Amino acid sequence: MKSAIIASTSTIHGSGYLEYLTNTLKDHFNRVDEIVFIPYARPSGISHDEYTKIASKAFLKLDKKVIGIHEFNNPAEAMLNAKGIFTGGGNTFVLVNQLYKNKLIEPLKEVIENGTPYLGTSAGSNICGLTMNTTNDMPIVYPPSFKTLGIVPFNINPHYLDSIEGSTHMGETRETRIKEFHKFNTQPVIGLREGSWIEVKGKTMFLRGELDARIFTYNEAPYEIKTNTDLEFLK
Amino acid sequence: MKSAIIASTSTIHGSGYLEYLTNTLKDHFNRVDEIVFIPYARPSGISHDEYTKIASKAFLKLDKKVIGIHEFNNPAEAMLNAKGIFTGGGNTFVLVNQLYKNKLIEPLKEVIENGTPYLGTSAGSNICGLTMNTTNDMPIVYPPSFKTLGIVPFNINPHYLDSIEGSTHMGETRETRIKEFHKFNTQPVIGLREGSWIEVKGKTMFLRGELDARIFTYNEAPYEIKTNTDLEFLK
Repeated sequence: MKSAIIASTSTIHGSGYLEYLTNTLKDHFNRVDEIVFIPYARPSGISHDEYTKIASKAFLKLDKKVIGIHEFNNPAEAMLNAKGIFTGGGNTFVLVNQLYKNKLIEPLKEVIENGTPYLGTSAGSNICGLTMNTTNDMPIVYPPSFKTLGIVPFNINPHYLDSIEGSTHMGETRETRIKEFHKFNTQPVIGLREGSWIEVKGKTMFLRGELDARIFTYNEAPYEIKTNTDLEFLK
Repeated sequence: MKSAIIASTSTIHGSGYLEYLTNTLKDHFNRVDEIVFIPYARPSGISHDEYTKIASKAFLKLDKKVIGIHEFNNPAEAMLNAKGIFTGGGNTFVLVNQLYKNKLIEPLKEVIENGTPYLGTSAGSNICGLTMNTTNDMPIVYPPSFKTLGIVPFNINPHYLDSIEGSTHMGETRETRIKEFHKFNTQPVIGLREGSWIEVKGKTMFLRGELDARIFTYNEAPYEIKTNTDLEFLK
């Protein structure tokens, strides 16, 4: 049974790495003692080893061992054998580029669909949407495609940020950007605020965390949904 | 002689469209009575016609006629015959995609290099850099390449935004994003604050406007430069 946690962020303000998700992850990975970590998104450009250490430290508190996928000679095979998978945040372009380069898009999709428990945060969540066209990241590398895993039948905007009232900055607000997306694409987008996540279990998908989320659908005005909303309607 | 104005934004807070550039543009386009406008970046997804009207209205005050490049049957030819060219802001991915689709990258580079006075704002400035890898825009379409015109021998980050002290948002700051860019690319980046522009005349390039700009070079700490700085050192 498909089982994924798709989180807006790894870290909420004033709290440690993955700390706000502790209880959720205990439950999510309860039958797993070893997690394969995908460090490809390289936040601040840190190395795969450095990033894997950060993830290891967080999962040590839950008594789980973490191994970076870059430590395997055959990463596709490692993915197929993984008991659990975590893809960390960073730059979505760098992440997607590396997944394509290592021919991991299909294997990753396959194992998640087949029930390997998955955790994604930020960029690692973005790739669970149909495409990465709604990432906030800077396009610092050119991936072969923007198509991603489609674990959920819509697009994700992590770190969703409300417009700042009275701002004098003339750059586009997040809402404007997603509305522009809908001039060229038709799939729905969920704006996940920091602290929110999507819980996928089999065919069900629910919004979790304490906050509401913002929904953008083609040709309609954006609107809010409450936490614990069933996302089945989002297609 | 090459002659380009590469501006961070079309509009500064509390002022009309292109208003802060009025005197600069009078001088820049002084021998030009007709400007070809490239509306491809489609801010907020507006149509090419709608966008051209906005540009027309602004240039009417300077007694210049504006024609949208989409109004020509042969846009490459229109570009070669243009007396002046203005590319407006919006979404850089959409702009670059359309320029490639219409085979206009080479002709546009050529006419600017050969001396057709050029104005770019925001996305229209981004394309004057070596690549569009330092845009702030959302990747709502997938262009065939991120390579751009290279009118200047570095990359541009328009609407440069300083980190907000005390922000609780966990998304990357602009500075972090550009530092990540330099983990994968080596060319310098200029962070142009709203109200700043680069004035290119022949082989000279100067920072103009009232504000300082921020310079990011490979393997060095970012630093500020004063307005009116000669940018010749940036390669």
